[in-house]
Amino acid sequence: MTPASNANLVTDRPTFVTHLECGLTGQRYEADQLHGLSDAGRPLLVRYDLDGVGNALDRETLAARPRDLWRWRELLPVRDTANIVSLGEIDTPIVALDQIGKALGAAPGELLVKDEGRLPTGSFKARGLVMAISMAKELGVTAIAMPTNGNAGAAAAAYAAQAGMEAIIFCPDDTPEINVREIAAQGARVYRVNGLIDDCGKLVREGCAARGWFDLSTLKEPYRIEGKKTMGLELAEQFGWDLPDVIFYPTGGGTGLIGMWKAFKELQALGWVGDKLPRMVAVQAEGCAPMVRAWEQGERHAARWEDAHTIAAGIRVPQAVGDFLILDAVRESNGRAMAVSDADLARAVDDTATSDGLLLCPEGGATLAAWRQAKSEGWVKDGEIALLFNCATGLKYPLPDKSRTLDRNAPVDWRAI
Amino acid sequence: MTPASNANLVTDRPTFVTHLECGLTGQRYEADQLHGLSDAGRPLLVRYDLDGVGNALDRETLAARPRDLWRWRELLPVRDTANIVSLGEIDTPIVALDQIGKALGAAPGELLVKDEGRLPTGSFKARGLVMAISMAKELGVTAIAMPTNGNAGAAAAAYAAQAGMEAIIFCPDDTPEINVREIAAQGARVYRVNGLIDDCGKLVREGCAARGWFDLSTLKEPYRIEGKKTMGLELAEQFGWDLPDVIFYPTGGGTGLIGMWKAFKELQALGWVGDKLPRMVAVQAEGCAPMVRAWEQGERHAARWEDAHTIAAGIRVPQAVGDFLILDAVRESNGRAMAVSDADLARAVDDTATSDGLLLCPEGGATLAAWRQAKSEGWVKDGEIALLFNCATGLKYPLPDKSRTLDRNAPVDWRAI
Repeated sequence: MTPASNANLVTDRPTFVTHLECGLTGQRYEADQLHGLSDAGRPLLVRYDLDGVGNALDRETLAARPRDLWRWRELLPVRDTANIVSLGEIDTPIVALDQIGKALGAAPGELLVKDEGRLPTGSFKARGLVMAISMAKELGVTAIAMPTNGNAGAAAAAYAAQAGMEAIIFCPDDTPEINVREIAAQGARVYRVNGLIDDCGKLVREGCAARGWFDLSTLKEPYRIEGKKTMGLELAEQFGWDLPDVIFYPTGGGTGLIGMWKAFKELQALGWVGDKLPRMVAVQAEGCAPMVRAWEQGERHAARWEDAHTIAAGIRVPQAVGDFLILDAVRESNGRAMAVSDADLARAVDDTATSDGLLLCPEGGATLAAWRQAKSEGWVKDGEIALLFNCATGLKYPLPDKSRTLDRNAPVDWRAI
Repeated sequence: MTPASNANLVTDRPTFVTHLECGLTGQRYEADQLHGLSDAGRPLLVRYDLDGVGNALDRETLAARPRDLWRWRELLPVRDTANIVSLGEIDTPIVALDQIGKALGAAPGELLVKDEGRLPTGSFKARGLVMAISMAKELGVTAIAMPTNGNAGAAAAAYAAQAGMEAIIFCPDDTPEINVREIAAQGARVYRVNGLIDDCGKLVREGCAARGWFDLSTLKEPYRIEGKKTMGLELAEQFGWDLPDVIFYPTGGGTGLIGMWKAFKELQALGWVGDKLPRMVAVQAEGCAPMVRAWEQGERHAARWEDAHTIAAGIRVPQAVGDFLILDAVRESNGRAMAVSDADLARAVDDTATSDGLLLCPEGGATLAAWRQAKSEGWVKDGEIALLFNCATGLKYPLPDKSRTLDRNAPVDWRAI
């Protein structure tokens, strides 16, 4: 029996994928076949018959479905319901940071966080990987490999376990400890590599060539972006189809930013949202800011960032294969790319926990640090709604020990407690 | 501005609390006043004008509200919307453990987990504490104290931070490290005590007497149970108002089991669920099983369990002030109390992660170990739907390091990877 709340997982619905196309050249590729990058070495984007979607689905029908990612089925690539894997991809909540906001003159409700740490495996990577693994299953894949800074590997391992698929994961040797361990706990083989994520990516390419594994690297297969797209779809509905003014997004590989922008365009084509779209802010760390440098220099592609370093492992991505898609979205939206220091992002994490009770991940802290700067500069104006993305639960990252001890057998001086 | 998805947090709705009464003697206490235990030293239960609720609310109206705990407002105690604190108390998903279930002959969908690790601070304690802190705010409290095995303290600290309330937390010195640290990160003062949770409770009583803090211990104030009650309300709706056959609940203080049973009774009074209620199984660890002993011996109260020990810290509760409420619910439901070994609960955690990709907490693992035993015995019959509670994200608990290393500068033997 399936609980009513899981109806989206077992209900056959029409699908509308027509084809895929190269994000750079527009070259067309067939749907329902296994693909990696385009011939131009760039990400493939999935295209839909949006008129067909519009005829099959309206916002009222959507509103009556259970609140998970799979309710967007007509805008997703999975054809056969039997290929859906799931660990409970619920809508993530939007939490107001009213105490933090007040300090910089934001009115209640003007500073919001979408808390993606509530997804399976504790991060927004679940959105991309649930789609990638479901599609891999649909297209006959039995073993996947990927490089990761931690959370993506954890999500891949979890869904691969459920799909009965072999998973081989490569991560930098200073990846957050919890990530390395959860990947292995969920049945994957995990290797610590003396290098950065693109070094791991190189190993994945070699291994896939040697062993026939499917390469699940960020944007190297077409479906993670479709999963991440649901962040944009979900946001639109949560805001009553009137999107916030600015979105601050922690940007490593950028799949989510690209995916959200794609979602907004598809919703516009459906007539479900209007002309006004959010200004997209790509937030990076000062120690690894290839998008910021390219944005400032007016480049469409971003050169590799040498000696990348930041405590926010998730955005330590020296080079992104979807660079131009990120920069295009930032520019088209009248957004910007911003770099923040490790000190500022760490302070943002501390402040949010003590003031509003929400424990952000370091990358989430980076978005708050960027908002603080943009708000101080007047780039975020009074009355504007800003939405930050907290991409993972703060519980995955080391916290200092600020506890004290008390001996239950000794007299307590209660005035000193 | 408030996103449409947060409408429950800002919409005034009628409330129906009439009074409180002692869970043991039925003695009546006034609503809208600060209370601890009853004169008999037992928990107070909140009572509602359920006819009034039935006139004000129906299941269709509920279905149209955003999916969070606050949509049950007419069945909750908070009078003034302005006193609601919130970190995003979304509905938690129900995940099928089909691979694990298959090994013991369960059909797909017969073995389900309600994954409470998706709540704020990563555990079901958020349900109780969001209500307790909101009510403490409503009733003028400015400082709270409590003993904790970890997760309750974390939730209390988070909501107290948002409410601007002082929080002083006492925990056994072997409480999971992440809990101790997150409590402090969220602005509370936290003390490690050389003792168990009831030793910490004794310190809380002394401190409250000396300093005037409000005692937020399990069941010592009336509102945590009302928050935990939403597990039962939510389940009923998620199952289309036809509840599962058996619920396996990891039982320490037992607030959730008591709360769910109270929810089911209120839903019956409203006519929203029928006669058939789930059999309630109180799951404990072999090293701390006071409820199991009392249930087996036919006692209504459970004596303190000496030398309590288990790796599942959340159910290491030697003595529970609501013992009779737990045992009454177990008996009335034709359920049972079961103890499982640490080895079995740890194995259940491993198996679930590798087979179905879901990382349970140790207490969640205990419920699976109990189901395995009950299913093998035939007590859970073929075709029966069993629901386990995973009370916290598995990410909060230590995992072994099963990673390997790979040198990116050396040749790789891919056949060995």
